[in-house]
Amino acid sequence: MKALQLGLLGIGTVGSGTFAVLQRNQAEIVRRAGRGIVIKTVADLDTACARAVVGDAAQVVADARAVIADPEIDVVVELIGGYGIARALVLEAIAAGKHVVTANKALLAVHGSEIFAAARAKGVIVAFEAAVAGGIPIIKALREGLTANQVQWVAGIINGTTNFILSEMRDKGLDFDVVLKEAQRLGYAEADPTFDIEGVDAAHKATLMSAIAFGVPVQFDKAHVEGITRLAAADIRYAEQLGYRIKLLGIARRQAEGIELRVHPTLVPTKRLIANVEGAMNAVMVQGDAVGTTLYYGKGAGSEPTASAVIADLVDIARLSGAGEGARVPALGFQPEALAQADALPILPIEQVLTSFYLRLRVADEAGVLARLTGILAERGISLDAVLQRPGDEVAAGQPAATDLIMLTHITREGAMRAALAEMQALPSVLAPIVSLRKEDLA
Amino acid sequence: MKALQLGLLGIGTVGSGTFAVLQRNQAEIVRRAGRGIVIKTVADLDTACARAVVGDAAQVVADARAVIADPEIDVVVELIGGYGIARALVLEAIAAGKHVVTANKALLAVHGSEIFAAARAKGVIVAFEAAVAGGIPIIKALREGLTANQVQWVAGIINGTTNFILSEMRDKGLDFDVVLKEAQRLGYAEADPTFDIEGVDAAHKATLMSAIAFGVPVQFDKAHVEGITRLAAADIRYAEQLGYRIKLLGIARRQAEGIELRVHPTLVPTKRLIANVEGAMNAVMVQGDAVGTTLYYGKGAGSEPTASAVIADLVDIARLSGAGEGARVPALGFQPEALAQADALPILPIEQVLTSFYLRLRVADEAGVLARLTGILAERGISLDAVLQRPGDEVAAGQPAATDLIMLTHITREGAMRAALAEMQALPSVLAPIVSLRKEDLA
Repeated sequence: MKALQLGLLGIGTVGSGTFAVLQRNQAEIVRRAGRGIVIKTVADLDTACARAVVGDAAQVVADARAVIADPEIDVVVELIGGYGIARALVLEAIAAGKHVVTANKALLAVHGSEIFAAARAKGVIVAFEAAVAGGIPIIKALREGLTANQVQWVAGIINGTTNFILSEMRDKGLDFDVVLKEAQRLGYAEADPTFDIEGVDAAHKATLMSAIAFGVPVQFDKAHVEGITRLAAADIRYAEQLGYRIKLLGIARRQAEGIELRVHPTLVPTKRLIANVEGAMNAVMVQGDAVGTTLYYGKGAGSEPTASAVIADLVDIARLSGAGEGARVPALGFQPEALAQADALPILPIEQVLTSFYLRLRVADEAGVLARLTGILAERGISLDAVLQRPGDEVAAGQPAATDLIMLTHITREGAMRAALAEMQALPSVLAPIVSLRKEDLA
Repeated sequence: MKALQLGLLGIGTVGSGTFAVLQRNQAEIVRRAGRGIVIKTVADLDTACARAVVGDAAQVVADARAVIADPEIDVVVELIGGYGIARALVLEAIAAGKHVVTANKALLAVHGSEIFAAARAKGVIVAFEAAVAGGIPIIKALREGLTANQVQWVAGIINGTTNFILSEMRDKGLDFDVVLKEAQRLGYAEADPTFDIEGVDAAHKATLMSAIAFGVPVQFDKAHVEGITRLAAADIRYAEQLGYRIKLLGIARRQAEGIELRVHPTLVPTKRLIANVEGAMNAVMVQGDAVGTTLYYGKGAGSEPTASAVIADLVDIARLSGAGEGARVPALGFQPEALAQADALPILPIEQVLTSFYLRLRVADEAGVLARLTGILAERGISLDAVLQRPGDEVAAGQPAATDLIMLTHITREGAMRAALAEMQALPSVLAPIVSLRKEDLA
């Protein structure tokens, strides 16, 4: 059987990994796929750089549209990234009848519905294993491995940069800013790290997982997104004393009324496997009603780990492209006509999220404070799981003696907690902005 | 599209889980598969019990062959277990043109080549996600998710009974026999636990993974199998002091000359995620040349977790059964004609295995013993990573003072170690049988 012919758009980190792995493991891949998978053409504005990577093994062009127009090319592999030109090229490739493989989570989280509809109308496959958690086959696990289940929730460490920063903050007791600089120096964080540290990248991935887990359209605009930039070393330390680690989790959870979709720093019990995922590694937990808890762990980024996912999609296409559409796994795992309408199973506003909380309050060290605080919580139906009182670490001259009060709550609606926080913050005995972090037991 | 019609052979733990999950999640499954998946007939010798499970929702018969002969049935789900009647029925179902889904690792590890060849000749699918690690989609990860990779090794905790026993031995400092009785009382171990505690069940699963990882035929008879029955609490304790946990691992590793296929208690660094997999949970690590280290974790047994895997296979079949054979994933992930011949990539004898060792020697507490022991190791090219000397915990009257000597070696061929062990054992200063356990860094 003729080898599958690829056109690569962009040959940066992931593109050169894809080229290298296809070259090195071609024989093994043919044994598995039953046919070759060959890069025919690479399109990159920097043709000199592209040629340095591929040598004589593939054509190099500057114009991506020449690749799309080539009738011999079966699959366009989009590795440009971003929402702009990538969107146009992916839609043009689909219109030209090409299958598309992409690692572009931003594109799919924002424009996925448009792209999947276009692919369906044209009868081509859009595959994106590499868009979530790098080399970990989590899209396949959700779309195919766990199809028996009503998924209850998905929670993942899906951004290596922030997990590296959090690991370093904990290990070395350093603050965010210091560790970020170190991470940039080591290449774990980009020069402009905004998408990573503000949780946007994780939210793109969580959005894709929420759609596949529950059969709803991708709705990145409904995601609640908080990054790690305001996280203090003190809270990592207090959490540790209480038996928790702080991880930036992407969470998608089904409630009766809709779906929680959120990214934020989260306290996780230290004894959970996922709490022990360190450095730039990724891990995703999936809770299904039949299978119980499962976890998938590996490298979430990097040249060859991401290429591993790109090529897995290509092998699937090599096996499936001759078959009818019925044989293919739908883009989001659910048949397109069976996707829930956005209003039938809405993404819930953050106020409706059910979670527990870690609170750190700097309070005046005087009688009655704890009683008033717990009274406010009790009025909102929020009950406490643990309280930890610590000496405050600095008291300016002329100020009253102050102490740090740490409280862990049981599960509550976020709306109730927000109201309670506003009321507590207004008390004169509360001397500084209250720190509140969400806590998930993941049991 | 017409619902996929199933015939279930056997409705014990996994069968009733499969029935329950198909009933409960039918709507979600239809949304994913694009068609229903319905149990038409259940065959079980205990028809009363079967009827109690399925009520009026399916036909119940005593004769499995009536199911196989039914032209309306698309898929035979074999949940009888064992090598005997199950083999005959699976081959008959294939001969009758039925697809087969099975959770029977023993059957496939021993008779897989015959069964896969029969299925291929007849153009039907034999699927077995449930045969390894219960609900964890590890077969799919290996066959489809990691197809870009040359797999370097697979190492897994793939028997929940023994992992439960090892966790309890460590937690409570108890010996094997005591914990086994407790496990039997709690239902974690069967009345006849031989297959679990002697490592046979894990070896069945490791055999299947070795075939899929490397593209070789299933060769259970070549596996090296050791269980946990001779493991002493003292060794678990010493290992812990040195930074290791002892797990029963199933390992398949590629060497230049062939494949290591082995099950044995193994020291694993405590900091590895897999060392922290406790109780009856399963986890499998896969190391690929592109993806690096990945890990898959979940429940390895039980009614609904195993049903989750059975139904995932059924959804695959529902999606694929109309498509041509080229579209299907081959049984072992590699195209049948591309499987390596057993002699081209042989399973290596245990002497050729590369591993490191933990040794515990009860030695006379006298000058020169350590020098002679390390001399014997050095002669065989075996170097030491660590030595721990502890006071012996009992000295009978009239015997020389004795001490426990613990040694960790670097990687060596097992054959060299066996020769060194024989020589060391013959020394008069070595007072008791030497305990040797294998150690894997899994890095």
